[in-house]
Amino acid sequence: MKPIQVGLLGIGVVGSGTFNVLQRNQEEIKRRAGRGIDITMVADLNVARAQALVGPGVTVVSDARAVIANPDIDIVIELIGGYGIAKTLVLEAIAAGKHVVTANKALLAVHGTEIFAAASAKGVMVAFEAAVAGGIPIIKALREGLTANRIQWIAGIINGTTNFILSEMRDKGLDFAVVLKEAQRLGYAEADPTFDIEGVDAAHKVTLMSAIAFGVPVQFDKAYIEGITKLGAADIKYAEQLGYRIKLLGITKRRQGDATKRQTDGIELRVHPCLIPAKRLIANVEGAMNAVVVQGDAVGTTLYYGKGAGSEPTASAVIADLVDITRLHTADAAHRVPHLAFQPNAMSKLPMLPMSEVVTSYYLRLRVADETGVLAKVTGILAEAGISIDAMLQREADEVGGEGSTQTDLIILTHDCMEARMNAAIALMQALPSVLEPITRIRKEELA
Amino acid sequence: MKPIQVGLLGIGVVGSGTFNVLQRNQEEIKRRAGRGIDITMVADLNVARAQALVGPGVTVVSDARAVIANPDIDIVIELIGGYGIAKTLVLEAIAAGKHVVTANKALLAVHGTEIFAAASAKGVMVAFEAAVAGGIPIIKALREGLTANRIQWIAGIINGTTNFILSEMRDKGLDFAVVLKEAQRLGYAEADPTFDIEGVDAAHKVTLMSAIAFGVPVQFDKAYIEGITKLGAADIKYAEQLGYRIKLLGITKRRQGDATKRQTDGIELRVHPCLIPAKRLIANVEGAMNAVVVQGDAVGTTLYYGKGAGSEPTASAVIADLVDITRLHTADAAHRVPHLAFQPNAMSKLPMLPMSEVVTSYYLRLRVADETGVLAKVTGILAEAGISIDAMLQREADEVGGEGSTQTDLIILTHDCMEARMNAAIALMQALPSVLEPITRIRKEELA
Repeated sequence: MKPIQVGLLGIGVVGSGTFNVLQRNQEEIKRRAGRGIDITMVADLNVARAQALVGPGVTVVSDARAVIANPDIDIVIELIGGYGIAKTLVLEAIAAGKHVVTANKALLAVHGTEIFAAASAKGVMVAFEAAVAGGIPIIKALREGLTANRIQWIAGIINGTTNFILSEMRDKGLDFAVVLKEAQRLGYAEADPTFDIEGVDAAHKVTLMSAIAFGVPVQFDKAYIEGITKLGAADIKYAEQLGYRIKLLGITKRRQGDATKRQTDGIELRVHPCLIPAKRLIANVEGAMNAVVVQGDAVGTTLYYGKGAGSEPTASAVIADLVDITRLHTADAAHRVPHLAFQPNAMSKLPMLPMSEVVTSYYLRLRVADETGVLAKVTGILAEAGISIDAMLQREADEVGGEGSTQTDLIILTHDCMEARMNAAIALMQALPSVLEPITRIRKEELA
Repeated sequence: MKPIQVGLLGIGVVGSGTFNVLQRNQEEIKRRAGRGIDITMVADLNVARAQALVGPGVTVVSDARAVIANPDIDIVIELIGGYGIAKTLVLEAIAAGKHVVTANKALLAVHGTEIFAAASAKGVMVAFEAAVAGGIPIIKALREGLTANRIQWIAGIINGTTNFILSEMRDKGLDFAVVLKEAQRLGYAEADPTFDIEGVDAAHKVTLMSAIAFGVPVQFDKAYIEGITKLGAADIKYAEQLGYRIKLLGITKRRQGDATKRQTDGIELRVHPCLIPAKRLIANVEGAMNAVVVQGDAVGTTLYYGKGAGSEPTASAVIADLVDITRLHTADAAHRVPHLAFQPNAMSKLPMLPMSEVVTSYYLRLRVADETGVLAKVTGILAEAGISIDAMLQREADEVGGEGSTQTDLIILTHDCMEARMNAAIALMQALPSVLEPITRIRKEELA
């Protein structure tokens, strides 16, 4: 059988990795797929550079539409990124009857509903293993490996930049800003790191996992997003003393309603720094590595770990999608795995819960005046709000502010309570004259 | 579309879990698969017990052949186990044109070649996600998720019983025999634990992973197998002091030949206790949990973790296979993933290497007389054999044998060398009059 012909839009870091791995392992891949897979055409604005990368045997053009218009091309790989021209080109490729492979989490998390509907209508596949956690086959695990399960929750370290920064902060006892500079120097953080450090990238990815796990449409606009920019070395140290690590997690959870607690059915979708018990496997995922924990009602806890970014790890996921499509592209659509794991006519209407309704536990750090009665006031406010305390840590003033200091840190771990209630309690505590700085609040998950 | 009809052979722990999960999550599974999946017929020798488990709506028979002969049955699940009647029934089910789902690692590791050939000839699928690492979708990851990669090696904790025993030995400083009794009392080890503790079960599983990873036939008879029965608490403690944990690993590795070292191309396939650096994620997998590390040339290191046994975790894998088959059973065979990941006409002829040709590093413990010159003799033998020493630990005689003891332990970590060479060196050391007991040799893998 003649090889499947693939057109590549954008040959940057991941694109060149994809080209190279396909070439290097072509014999092995063909032995698996039963058919060769060739990138025969590349579109990139820098034609000369692209041509140098792929050699003379591959057609290089500057106009992506020439790739889409080529009737010999079976699959289009979109590696341009962003919501702009990438969206237009993906929709045009679908309209032209091409299957699409993309690593574009932003595009799918925001415009996935439109794109998947167009693909279904046209009978083509849009595959996106590379959009979440790089080379880890987590989309496949969720869509196919765990189909027996009612998935209960997913929690993932799905942004390597922030995990690298948090690992360094902990290892070296440094504050965020210092480590960020180092990460930029080493290439672990981009010149404009906003999407990573503010949690937006992780939110795109957890939005996709949430849709696949629970059979709901992608709803990036409903995600609660909080980054790591306000974390200090002190919090990481205190967490450690309490037996926890701080990680930036993407979390999505199915909540069973409970009328007695005025809780409705719904889905949590959130990205924020999180205390997790140090003994959990995921707490020990260091550096730029990614890991996703999936809890299913039959399988229990499973974890998937690997490189979440980089040229060849991401290429590994892109090529796995190419092989899947190669196997199924002449099969009728009923034989294929649905884009979002559930049949399009069997999606759930479960609402996304606002952050104020999320129930979790908390780490609070209060910088307080070292004087009698502060503790009683603070714990009084929590008791009044019905929030119970799990553990507390109070440092000697000298330790915190140096000899003769009149300030100290009060660290509290709470049991579960609803976020709205915690917000109200924090506002009351913040108003106490003895509370000297903005209160630090970090959510805590036991992940068990 | 009418539901897919499934016949179940053997309703023990996994069978009843499969039945229960399919019932409990039937709506969710149907929303994914696009079609209902019903177990409509069960064969079990204990008909009354089976009928009580499945209720009056399901036909229960004592004769498995009645299930295979039923033309309404699309898929047969084999959960009988062993090589005997299970093999006959699987082949008969294939001959009758049924797809087969099985958790039977022993059967496939030993008779897989015959079974997969029969299935291919008949155009049916034999799915076996449940045969390796229970609920972890590792077969899917290897066969489909990592198709871009030239896989380099796999190392897995794939037997929960032995991992539970090793975790307990380490936690409590107890010897093997004591912990085994406790594990049997708790139900983590069977009354006859031979297959688990001697490494046979792990060898079945790593044989299957090896075939899928490297595109070679299943060759259980070529596996090197060593269990954990000879491990003592002392070795676990010494390993800890050197920064290592001891785990029973199933390992398979592709070796690139090197003429200068007289090494030929080939595949390693082995199960034995192993020192691994304590900082590796897999070193921290405790209790009855399983984890598999896969190293691919593009993706780098990935790890898959979860419950490797038990009723519902295993059922999770069985049902994932049912959903896959439900999607593909009317597609022609070219659309399906090959049983062993590679197309049957594109298998590799790479030979399995005998253990004597495996290259690895070693932990050695020698109980020696506490006298001058022993160390010089031992290190002299190693130097003569061209084996270099990575680290050494010598305990005070008092620490090892109590006050006034005239014996001590000499612990040596070596660099890589070929097993045959190490065997020869051990024989020479063993012959020294100052070496008082059989030398303990545990292999060491850095897994990086």
